[in-house]
Amino acid sequence: MAESEFDIIRYYFARHRASRDDVLVGIGDDAALLQAPAGRVLAVCLDTLVAGVHFPPETSAAAIGHKALAVNLSDLAAMGAEPAWAMLALTVPENDAAWLAAFSDAFFTLADQYAVQLVGGDTTRGPLAVTVQAHGFVPPEKALRRQGARPGERIYVTGTLGDAGLALRMNDPGDNWLRKRLDFPEPRIEAGLVLRDYASAAIDVSDGLLADLGHLLESGRLGASLWIDALPRSAAFLGAMQVLDPERRGQFHELPLGAGDDYELCFTVAEQHCGEMEKRLDGIPGGCRWIGVVEADQGIRCYRDDGAPYRPAVSGYQHFSSTP
Amino acid sequence: MAESEFDIIRYYFARHRASRDDVLVGIGDDAALLQAPAGRVLAVCLDTLVAGVHFPPETSAAAIGHKALAVNLSDLAAMGAEPAWAMLALTVPENDAAWLAAFSDAFFTLADQYAVQLVGGDTTRGPLAVTVQAHGFVPPEKALRRQGARPGERIYVTGTLGDAGLALRMNDPGDNWLRKRLDFPEPRIEAGLVLRDYASAAIDVSDGLLADLGHLLESGRLGASLWIDALPRSAAFLGAMQVLDPERRGQFHELPLGAGDDYELCFTVAEQHCGEMEKRLDGIPGGCRWIGVVEADQGIRCYRDDGAPYRPAVSGYQHFSSTP
Repeated sequence: MAESEFDIIRYYFARHRASRDDVLVGIGDDAALLQAPAGRVLAVCLDTLVAGVHFPPETSAAAIGHKALAVNLSDLAAMGAEPAWAMLALTVPENDAAWLAAFSDAFFTLADQYAVQLVGGDTTRGPLAVTVQAHGFVPPEKALRRQGARPGERIYVTGTLGDAGLALRMNDPGDNWLRKRLDFPEPRIEAGLVLRDYASAAIDVSDGLLADLGHLLESGRLGASLWIDALPRSAAFLGAMQVLDPERRGQFHELPLGAGDDYELCFTVAEQHCGEMEKRLDGIPGGCRWIGVVEADQGIRCYRDDGAPYRPAVSGYQHFSSTP
Repeated sequence: MAESEFDIIRYYFARHRASRDDVLVGIGDDAALLQAPAGRVLAVCLDTLVAGVHFPPETSAAAIGHKALAVNLSDLAAMGAEPAWAMLALTVPENDAAWLAAFSDAFFTLADQYAVQLVGGDTTRGPLAVTVQAHGFVPPEKALRRQGARPGERIYVTGTLGDAGLALRMNDPGDNWLRKRLDFPEPRIEAGLVLRDYASAAIDVSDGLLADLGHLLESGRLGASLWIDALPRSAAFLGAMQVLDPERRGQFHELPLGAGDDYELCFTVAEQHCGEMEKRLDGIPGGCRWIGVVEADQGIRCYRDDGAPYRPAVSGYQHFSSTP
């Protein structure tokens, strides 16, 4: 029976034995049994990556394995949660041992980095798709929400923006670092844990800065001024842009505003906490950059560094409408 | 941008507002925040249904919506857990309002029946597939495991076996009840909660009785005698079999042993508890039937009601080898 092949795959994932004390029963029963810690609430999220929709078909197995977990850890980071357990639903067209080895190695390498244990899942035959579900812990009063920002607070973002978007649009970005930003995003877990103590609101930037900052502001019916020349861009991004012809440069220069796939954190901090927060994020992967200010007027108003208003061509997803 | 359609779908699922006190933040943030109850451990499971693999392409949206949740609740039932929260990863090829209405209505009807709240998920575009993740609660000392059976204990099964398998193999089973058993399995939650007090081991029958009983026995390196004429078969199953020609009847008579998709519970109970257990399961949907005895010798030995040994043609999945 063809399904027996898939039992082999299941054993492939079961062989990994990162063991946490709070996992009473892991893979191999009808359900896992997990002990949630006292004094914490569970943060739970789930994301699906579909071949040809969320990643180009030629994406490596390692990139898919890493990214499927990373995008979920990024959601936990945006809640200020400490990751703990993951579940994996893997649908693959065939039993390809080399592909599975590369996929699972990358998945477990990232899982081990944050002491995340795979506690269950399902492997099925079908068109390539990966759904990961992740659990994290956070003290209830410290959880970061999308809502909570107040007018006058500063808007920050971790890391750099637009790298993944540029890598996706250039067949050969000429710099492997950009491609790595697309394929192997680093969830900002450490930053999220620090931000528990400072941020009034947070979201992860997966759909593009304008769209995701829009979600954060919408929840409080707020707006913002955004300094687009202050958006953090990597040296690799700037270097790749410089060698482009002017037309493509024109197409790509808004990628930091709307490309998505950044998996950075966007968050708001009251002015009196900003100094201490910046000090604590200094030296943590990604760091942070002050990019704007929360305002009572709805909409996101973009400005150049000479103070001139700037109307972006991109506005993120349609249900977010900027009103410059 | 085409993705905006999918935001509409997301709102479709977010509109359902079954609210549990232990859901601090539900759909709409980067992650849900959930309060696990004191004195309980979490039972967590996840299952994927892929179109054309786990259900025929012509399966109704309502059946898919019900079954995707039901198969997970069945896993929780097999642990003796009380269902609480679910997450949904839905991949659909297009935004078909009628399909989504029927799918979500059926999903939420079953969820409401067990006070399960949808706390998050992801809707993506791609080949039709549904992954559901479910959380339940169980007192740690009462959780039902696959392991724990002892020689001499009785083997039981809830409900009837083979109905779904027969419906799947007959284009028109001539009885809608059989089709309903395939499309709308009833998770044996109530039975699982009762069995917390009696069963030494339990598993849900999803791959076929021989395969799943095999898993239960394997975990303790045990075996069993099984009385195949005692297997519970529904009146609808027996009626449909009677009007078949002898060749098909010959093909189908082992469906209760190996067809799968039953979503009944198979469990073991020490003899001294059987009377009380049977009384408590009497009147609970599915009831139970005594079908065999756990033995120290590995392998499953099947017998007819005249005591003659019977060697099944089916043996479930290959990694389970029966040794009659």
